[in-house]
Amino acid sequence: MSARRYSHFRRKTFELFEPELGDRIGHYVDWFIMSLIAVNVAAVILETVDALGTTYATAFYYFELFSVLVFTIEYVCRVWSSVDNPQFDGPITGRLEFASRPLLIVDLLAILPFYLTVGGVQADLRFLRALRLIRLFRLLKLARYSTAMQSFVLVIEEKKEKLVLAFSANLLLLVIASSAMYYIENPYQPEAFSSIPRSFWWGVATLTTVGYGDVHPITPLGQFVGSIVAMLGIGLFALPASILASGFIEHAEDDTAKQYCPHCGEKLE
Amino acid sequence: MSARRYSHFRRKTFELFEPELGDRIGHYVDWFIMSLIAVNVAAVILETVDALGTTYATAFYYFELFSVLVFTIEYVCRVWSSVDNPQFDGPITGRLEFASRPLLIVDLLAILPFYLTVGGVQADLRFLRALRLIRLFRLLKLARYSTAMQSFVLVIEEKKEKLVLAFSANLLLLVIASSAMYYIENPYQPEAFSSIPRSFWWGVATLTTVGYGDVHPITPLGQFVGSIVAMLGIGLFALPASILASGFIEHAEDDTAKQYCPHCGEKLE
Amino acid sequence: MSARRYSHFRRKTFELFEPELGDRIGHYVDWFIMSLIAVNVAAVILETVDALGTTYATAFYYFELFSVLVFTIEYVCRVWSSVDNPQFDGPITGRLEFASRPLLIVDLLAILPFYLTVGGVQADLRFLRALRLIRLFRLLKLARYSTAMQSFVLVIEEKKEKLVLAFSANLLLLVIASSAMYYIENPYQPEAFSSIPRSFWWGVATLTTVGYGDVHPITPLGQFVGSIVAMLGIGLFALPASILASGFIEHAEDDTAKQYCPHCGEKLE
Amino acid sequence: MSARRYSHFRRKTFELFEPELGDRIGHYVDWFIMSLIAVNVAAVILETVDALGTTYATAFYYFELFSVLVFTIEYVCRVWSSVDNPQFDGPITGRLEFASRPLLIVDLLAILPFYLTVGGVQADLRFLRALRLIRLFRLLKLARYSTAMQSFVLVIEEKKEKLVLAFSANLLLLVIASSAMYYIENPYQPEAFSSIPRSFWWGVATLTTVGYGDVHPITPLGQFVGSIVAMLGIGLFALPASILASGFIEHAEDDTAKQYCPHCGEKLE
Repeated sequence: MSARRYSHFRRKTFELFEPELGDRIGHYVDWFIMSLIAVNVAAVILETVDALGTTYATAFYYFELFSVLVFTIEYVCRVWSSVDNPQFDGPITGRLEFASRPLLIVDLLAILPFYLTVGGVQADLRFLRALRLIRLFRLLKLARYSTAMQSFVLVIEEKKEKLVLAFSANLLLLVIASSAMYYIENPYQPEAFSSIPRSFWWGVATLTTVGYGDVHPITPLGQFVGSIVAMLGIGLFALPASILASGFIEHAEDDTAKQYCPHCGEKLE
Repeated sequence: MSARRYSHFRRKTFELFEPELGDRIGHYVDWFIMSLIAVNVAAVILETVDALGTTYATAFYYFELFSVLVFTIEYVCRVWSSVDNPQFDGPITGRLEFASRPLLIVDLLAILPFYLTVGGVQADLRFLRALRLIRLFRLLKLARYSTAMQSFVLVIEEKKEKLVLAFSANLLLLVIASSAMYYIENPYQPEAFSSIPRSFWWGVATLTTVGYGDVHPITPLGQFVGSIVAMLGIGLFALPASILASGFIEHAEDDTAKQYCPHCGEKLE
Repeated sequence: MSARRYSHFRRKTFELFEPELGDRIGHYVDWFIMSLIAVNVAAVILETVDALGTTYATAFYYFELFSVLVFTIEYVCRVWSSVDNPQFDGPITGRLEFASRPLLIVDLLAILPFYLTVGGVQADLRFLRALRLIRLFRLLKLARYSTAMQSFVLVIEEKKEKLVLAFSANLLLLVIASSAMYYIENPYQPEAFSSIPRSFWWGVATLTTVGYGDVHPITPLGQFVGSIVAMLGIGLFALPASILASGFIEHAEDDTAKQYCPHCGEKLE
Repeated sequence: MSARRYSHFRRKTFELFEPELGDRIGHYVDWFIMSLIAVNVAAVILETVDALGTTYATAFYYFELFSVLVFTIEYVCRVWSSVDNPQFDGPITGRLEFASRPLLIVDLLAILPFYLTVGGVQADLRFLRALRLIRLFRLLKLARYSTAMQSFVLVIEEKKEKLVLAFSANLLLLVIASSAMYYIENPYQPEAFSSIPRSFWWGVATLTTVGYGDVHPITPLGQFVGSIVAMLGIGLFALPASILASGFIEHAEDDTAKQYCPHCGEKLE
């Protein structure tokens, strides 16, 4: 292959994975990979159903083989053609720089477990199970394709400071509530409130208002303190939600705010 | 009946079911049908109470007979007189077009089960039970009569994109949380966390903060991950509510907003 | 007593119970009655604690006697002096009109049970118990003294239409969800889902996210439908809260909105 | 030491604990104390885990000794050098005034328990346990170092009146709901609803939507009233959260708001 045809082919490959460049085939590739990710997640979920997992074991295996193959080709093509992006122009340093971006690392994490279990040493079964979970990382690949998800990330970044503050206040309340409950309930329920870290389980269930009911105070003082904590929890634990919501409301106003009077053309404040 | 008297009669029927045309009798018809729907729903509910269902079985049956008769007459009249609406003027195509509108299909679904069970083959009992549920579709008929419900639908349509995004993020968190919990808890609670689809039950109960308590993690790692999930859940699962609420707040502001441009005095839309 | 001194005395009594007229003794009367209500509620609550209720039975009885006496004097004085308010000037019709206002009826309901149980026929014990509950109506008397409570009532009135809509949508979802769950779960849990009205208990616990856990679906289909219902419930059942909150936010903005530029005195929009 | 060197040394000490004065060493002191507080809280928590608490008992003891020493030095230095603040200039009255500020009392409470248990009379073990909890007060010391926490306090102060109103309404609903439930359920569940104060435990669990499930109505009337209470609870108990959230939203708007009057161009505060 001549250098020119090689470079032309690399350019075409590059355009295939950058759908905003308007290539029609690129759009089909896009849709194909997104669908494959969705089916993959469904496969991971359905494989754990005993009846299905054993009956269709080979089907699941070959589908996994096929998926990893496609994702590997996608990954290699992306890295190889990345030098066509003026941002990453060194043949080696550029590609390495490109490969170290968060989305590309997700792409790698989505295929790596397969090669580790197939090519690697025979690890024990428990470890293999945990690796299967990493296959769900493929779901994160969808983030690349979703502009809505990016606006979501934007709101989080804008409100980062307030969210950190709210989470800190929550953590403070959690630590104080769980510790107090440990000292109050431990003598009467040494099992459920065996230590402060274990009391956290009660604290989270109460402050988030989940309230499973497996652990709860039984002494009058414990129930009194628990009541106060539950009431404070509503206010504090709803804060992150309110902050995110206010971010969305502000964005919505930005989008729909009429900026100019349709009659005289003057700017409206 | 002369063609002219026929057409006059059809016109009168048409006006009867379009209360906004200002016919006084049309208003009474409106109220009668709305009340009948309400009593019907009450009947469906009360019929399931054993003591009432057996004692008043015949009363319930005759009331059902009467309701279906009224709703059938209403349905036939609406379809027959629909050609008086200039939108649907072909005698057959116009009526078919009118009958295929969502509200008319609801009207049909509300009476169809009765004819299927009476006139049709003797299906097994379980299937008949499910059909009874469809009688609740009559409740949806109320939507036609409620302008408030329409403003509610408006807000949902306006915020459709954001709602889909929020639900996608929730689904993503649900899939990841339930899968992680399956791998963590399955070895210790093979019954409750028998597969990822079954873990979804725990995931939904936790993320919506319902927390029935029938399924919950018991290992320290499971409780730690469950705590993180519960805290994230508050933020994410409150988003749809916040988005709807912001839609309502914006509508309220529209009602009371400044209507005139401060520069030229023209009315703003 | 001369007619003039009588009328002067009545006028003084009138001013005593209208603190906004600025009478200093009126303020003390105000505070005394509010404190008496608070102590009364505490007494009703503490009386039910077995250890206290039997030991201090006579103390509780004499305090009740004293409270009823004070509230009766207050009620009689209010009605008697009401004719000094130009709004209610007929000696009999004016007083009857005054006595039929909601707050006055609450005042009457707060003392009536005592006279019914003491002076009346010896009713059975269960009925007496229920009457004791009515003593808590005295708490509602506080509403008269609280301006904050009045602003709360204002927000509810302003948002009445939206609140009714939200509650209707909630009721609709509750009826449909509970009915569906009845048909799904009844064959497997004939006890917990014995009828649609009983299924409402599950429906409310799920849609409000309380989730006691005493009733919950156990079939896969039931858990799937229950999951959908729980997710919809978050959005719909949070609406009344959001609507009230938006009312409070709007009021807060009204209060703190800077209306004029501090430099040039021009009005700011 | 000459008076001048003494006064210079006191001035340096003063600057050490007022980081906003820009002293570089002051910043390190700041970070050191904040880290020490964080590690202290972790120690209090981990000490309650049986396995760790007994194995590393001496390590925990010496770390406690070291922490108290550092916090005591910090406290003494702060009080001693406080006279360099023009606000507190009397050598004794100024220092006493400074020591009676809330943050300084927290500082004292954080170290006092240690001296009480070491130097004081041998109190019984239960009392010592409760004192250990006071060590968590050290967490409150962090409030001094966090500007974000101060903005949080600001929002609470601004919305104080509305928050008190919301909490009053909640308390009212709690009292009425719990009392009603006591009279309804007590004859059927004399254990769970033994008195109104005990019914509060059910009331709080329901109104906050925690719903542990250990106590819940079983009679049809109780379940009906409980359903109404749960639905009202969503609206009322979410109010404090909404009020806080609206405070945060307003602050966010203040930051990004229009700063200049559109009429005269002057800056608006």
